Amino acid sequence: MELDALTTVGSLREAVAAFVDARDWQPFHSPKNLSMSIAIEAAELMEHFQWLTTEEARAAVQDPVERVAVANELADIVIYCLSLSNALDLEVSSAVLGKLETNEHRYPADEFRGRFRRPERERVDE
Amino acid sequence: MELDALTTVGSLREAVAAFVDARDWQPFHSPKNLSMSIAIEAAELMEHFQWLTTEEARAAVQDPVERVAVANELADIVIYCLSLSNALDLEVSSAVLGKLETNEHRYPADEFRGRFRRPERERVDE
Amino acid sequence: MELDALTTVGSLREAVAAFVDARDWQPFHSPKNLSMSIAIEAAELMEHFQWLTTEEARAAVQDPVERVAVANELADIVIYCLSLSNALDLEVSSAVLGKLETNEHRYPADEFRGRFRRPERERVDE
Amino acid sequence: MELDALTTVGSLREAVAAFVDARDWQPFHSPKNLSMSIAIEAAELMEHFQWLTTEEARAAVQDPVERVAVANELADIVIYCLSLSNALDLEVSSAVLGKLETNEHRYPADEFRGRFRRPERERVDE
Repeated sequence: MELDALTTVGSLREAVAAFVDARDWQPFHSPKNLSMSIAIEAAELMEHFQWLTTEEARAAVQDPVERVAVANELADIVIYCLSLSNALDLEVSSAVLGKLETNEHRYPADEFRGRFRRPERERVDE
Repeated sequence: MELDALTTVGSLREAVAAFVDARDWQPFHSPKNLSMSIAIEAAELMEHFQWLTTEEARAAVQDPVERVAVANELADIVIYCLSLSNALDLEVSSAVLGKLETNEHRYPADEFRGRFRRPERERVDE
Repeated sequence: MELDALTTVGSLREAVAAFVDARDWQPFHSPKNLSMSIAIEAAELMEHFQWLTTEEARAAVQDPVERVAVANELADIVIYCLSLSNALDLEVSSAVLGKLETNEHRYPADEFRGRFRRPERERVDE
Repeated sequence: MELDALTTVGSLREAVAAFVDARDWQPFHSPKNLSMSIAIEAAELMEHFQWLTTEEARAAVQDPVERVAVANELADIVIYCLSLSNALDLEVSSAVLGKLETNEHRYPADEFRGRFRRPERERVDE
């Protein structure tokens, strides 16, 4: 995580803004269009794992070529996320840290350890 | 962009990793599941704009309450992106900057200024 | 709508089942994988409209070549939907008609005419 | 498949058209918006399987309550697909049957039996 430890979110947002500005693409990068773009790129990421079991997918990403391909799909998603934050003048960092804090309360660690649903709810399901 | 200018991608990745670790959620955060999660959260973002025209969507995000709601959806997407980068030990910064460089060549600024397709291609379509 | 008026949902489901069976693809066509596949094909459909305004998208689908391309994307989505109904032994017709009936009550015609949200809710937003 | 064997695609399209017409929702049901709507509903379907392994998802849909919930999500996707076919005056049956025929040639049964990629391609990956 050497590069990520040195790179600010702001510098990545600026790189995306410069790319968009150089092409006068702000009219295309509307909130509605960017929400679609993020979903489209997310689907391209899913395509890598579509027919694999959970375990096969874990194994597939060990392959160096596949890792690069997946990193490129991830980059596409993040680029559109950063462009949306630029378009709306939103602080990504505070949105992320704020949401993690909300989730701390919504999913208390001791209740959700090793499970993605509350034990109570599972009991109800039985 | 004050906070984003000061916050490294690495520090956000660490915050996400701490959240996941505290709940032993690594088994759920497999590449396949995270790709689905990103797509699911992207869909929740799209829901805000689903029935609005491009212009109505631009207007809607001026509303302070709606801005916060959209920021929260964006945070969900970014959190899962960061969790995927943690799961795969991928540098988000280099993936993003590398992809922007690729796109610089793929979409030369002078050819794509104000258009999302090559002029040639549009001519062919006529 | 001549052909659709003569074709049963069941006959389309059988055509999809025969295609899947001939390739022994049932193990791939699990509920989880098919849900991803539907989302992936939906994203390919969205790609056709990603950078267009609502009105430009309406105009684009008048083009005969584009119409065929869009019909093909729609077919991909429907094929996976039918495969899911086969995998789960679900009646598509009763699911669709049942959901429309639910929606009749959820969205009473006189309250939702020309609007996708209840008037009350819009008033609250003001 | 008793009901599906008796129900034409056209009759379902008509039921969807009547629902949309009664609310004057045609302006909302534009191609762009419907493509988003299909993707949004596909994501709601994925949510049912998001954190489950392929096998756990197969088991989950045996539960009668879960089956109904999944059938409802599937219905939402199909309803928007049928509304798109209405909006564009496309024959769903011929699109589906035409695409299956294309795929017959693209994925010859003897080459793709039990595999979703060509053997050659896998060999190249090694």
